[in-house]
Amino acid sequence: MERRRILLIVLDGLGDRPVKELGHKTPLEAANKPTLDWFAQNGINGLLDPIAPGVRPGSDTSHLALLGYDPFEVYTGRGPFEAAGVGIDVRKGDIAFRGNFVTVDEDRNVVDRRAGRIREGTDELAKALDGMKLGRVKVLFRAGTDHRAALVLRGKGLSPKVTDTDPHEEGVPVIEAKPLESKAKATAKAVNAFTDKAYGLLKDHAVNKARAAKGEALANLVVLRGAGVVPHLEPFPERYNVKAAGIAGVALIRGICRAVGIDVLDVPGATGGLDTDMVAKADAALAALETAEFVLVNVKAPDLCGHDGQASEKIRVIERIDQMMAHLKSRLPADVVLALTADHSTPVSVKDHSGDPVPVTIFAEGVHVDDVARFDERAVARGGLGRIRGLDLMPILLSLANRAEKFGS
Amino acid sequence: MERRRILLIVLDGLGDRPVKELGHKTPLEAANKPTLDWFAQNGINGLLDPIAPGVRPGSDTSHLALLGYDPFEVYTGRGPFEAAGVGIDVRKGDIAFRGNFVTVDEDRNVVDRRAGRIREGTDELAKALDGMKLGRVKVLFRAGTDHRAALVLRGKGLSPKVTDTDPHEEGVPVIEAKPLESKAKATAKAVNAFTDKAYGLLKDHAVNKARAAKGEALANLVVLRGAGVVPHLEPFPERYNVKAAGIAGVALIRGICRAVGIDVLDVPGATGGLDTDMVAKADAALAALETAEFVLVNVKAPDLCGHDGQASEKIRVIERIDQMMAHLKSRLPADVVLALTADHSTPVSVKDHSGDPVPVTIFAEGVHVDDVARFDERAVARGGLGRIRGLDLMPILLSLANRAEKFGS
Repeated sequence: MERRRILLIVLDGLGDRPVKELGHKTPLEAANKPTLDWFAQNGINGLLDPIAPGVRPGSDTSHLALLGYDPFEVYTGRGPFEAAGVGIDVRKGDIAFRGNFVTVDEDRNVVDRRAGRIREGTDELAKALDGMKLGRVKVLFRAGTDHRAALVLRGKGLSPKVTDTDPHEEGVPVIEAKPLESKAKATAKAVNAFTDKAYGLLKDHAVNKARAAKGEALANLVVLRGAGVVPHLEPFPERYNVKAAGIAGVALIRGICRAVGIDVLDVPGATGGLDTDMVAKADAALAALETAEFVLVNVKAPDLCGHDGQASEKIRVIERIDQMMAHLKSRLPADVVLALTADHSTPVSVKDHSGDPVPVTIFAEGVHVDDVARFDERAVARGGLGRIRGLDLMPILLSLANRAEKFGS
Repeated sequence: MERRRILLIVLDGLGDRPVKELGHKTPLEAANKPTLDWFAQNGINGLLDPIAPGVRPGSDTSHLALLGYDPFEVYTGRGPFEAAGVGIDVRKGDIAFRGNFVTVDEDRNVVDRRAGRIREGTDELAKALDGMKLGRVKVLFRAGTDHRAALVLRGKGLSPKVTDTDPHEEGVPVIEAKPLESKAKATAKAVNAFTDKAYGLLKDHAVNKARAAKGEALANLVVLRGAGVVPHLEPFPERYNVKAAGIAGVALIRGICRAVGIDVLDVPGATGGLDTDMVAKADAALAALETAEFVLVNVKAPDLCGHDGQASEKIRVIERIDQMMAHLKSRLPADVVLALTADHSTPVSVKDHSGDPVPVTIFAEGVHVDDVARFDERAVARGGLGRIRGLDLMPILLSLANRAEKFGS
């Protein structure tokens, strides 16, 4: 059988609950989305619990599951995936932290947890810290967006069981890291050595001198939180024997892709924000399919509307996604197995992720097309896929793409 | 409550995908099968993933799951079940191989991998090898169909981690087995001793003398492949407290039955081929139910049509199955819990097993009869069983048969 390609489109935070102001419809039910509905009508549909029924997923744990990695086995915290997301080549056993550039006074009291909302110069500051040696421990450091950063400690015998140095409030000193288990002593020592050295390297850095001259708050220290050990993740291309590409604006999803060995593509105009150029994403996905056999596309915008509690804005985003899908539909190669789903629900009434299942539609040659006429939370519940889990999706897509190994004979 | 009997009918490879030439219907949807539909109308229906959604099952792994044994725990390869299928009483820890009678020249180059397609005399040849002692290792050997055979090594400290002696091609020598781990040395030595002794016992065997006289290729050696260790399998009759019988034409399914302690019945005319006498199978099942409380029937024919890519032939087979079911329906005792399902899909478009779910119908006193009107892949998806897994089936049937243990109080 001909092997097919797979396109997985994850509409971040798409799922929702009935909204009173929308006549008890969900934003998906209220939106005008003829192309999404066309895919539902010509595909097989169902509900998908990204992790398990009722479990509130993060975007990271859900994407891991959708890609076939059991988050209960491999998720050790956000740090490792954030670090991968900002471009650190994380390795199994590394200890990764999320960090903030902060402003501290001479007694290392935190004056500003966002270093005056610094947006420029953080790459230069990060360079000063990257490659630092703390005894036998090596530091890898990268700036993220705005004041955010990621730090990795690499060395033998390290442990993620250390406390944060981030006091999580202002007006109090940066905290000394403490080991939470005896074998974490060396790690805590390295973290505290990092704090000392970082202060020394940052306080008189040219970027900070320029900031001081302009009266801006200094970025003269980095506080750390959320230590996690980088898990072993069998590379996606080896696991499924496919060349794989990922298109995502947000660092966390880019990090998930990088951590599992999926090439992350940069798409001009695709920002991960509400202003993202969705058609550019669709074109990038089609272009990627020319060389890759698996392409993941994450569209972050619905999640942002959910977090903001903006039902009408979420409807508008869904209608823009529908236009993206119309663009894609007219150009979609016949051999592509297309899956449309979400990583979780972000109901506008909750303003955060919920444990509700999300719609899933698979459009491909050979599926048992069902009677579902609309792509929404209620309609797909009667579809032919029934209720599946995030971890089921990759095996189903691989089987439809004629890429699954037989188990037994 | 009265304890009921269970009849599980596995229609091998029955599931399919929409076929263009059938107006995008599956063979099941296109077939005229009033009795199968009657059972769907009067039973409870659903989709069944033999292993898990999207996973492409073998017939062996799927039957293990349908019988309640988790294949991820107990499946160690085909060898042990093939050996059981040809009648070797395999025991936990035995190392089982699949084998071929072959023709070799004086330098033990394989001249014919099927020994001139030998069909007769293999039982006598097997008897010459069965019971062979290789140091402390005992050989159990049986002929299978045609040139096929199975070998079991029994002894302490054996390992399945040895290479094949089968070169898998002609014109090259029989390969010396090599250990793939240090504790497999004794096993590799025994395998090589078997090759030497077998050649000595077979080359001048009366069967071969007769073949030589007729100008036929000799069956003067056996090559081995696919070593597997026999897993521990709690006997089915003990596990479920039932007397159990199995009706299957193909050796592999007979082997699965034997390996779990299900009595395999011989049914004259039931061949495991397209020419099988299905009504004889139904009568044998009814007769078996007079003493057994659990009867498994495997009908191999749909799978054969799937592998051959013959949609119209698959439809004819389904219509013959329908006649078998009509015969059975009119004679079915009222206390029997009947389950109708498949071990996997073998779509005619794929010509191999796929990871698609299969229909399952349970007809029994006490089920919640649903609205499903037809026994096919699409119709059952809206049934009352929802989407279940192979491992779920036995607990459901035992519960309906009033044979399940309570978990808790």
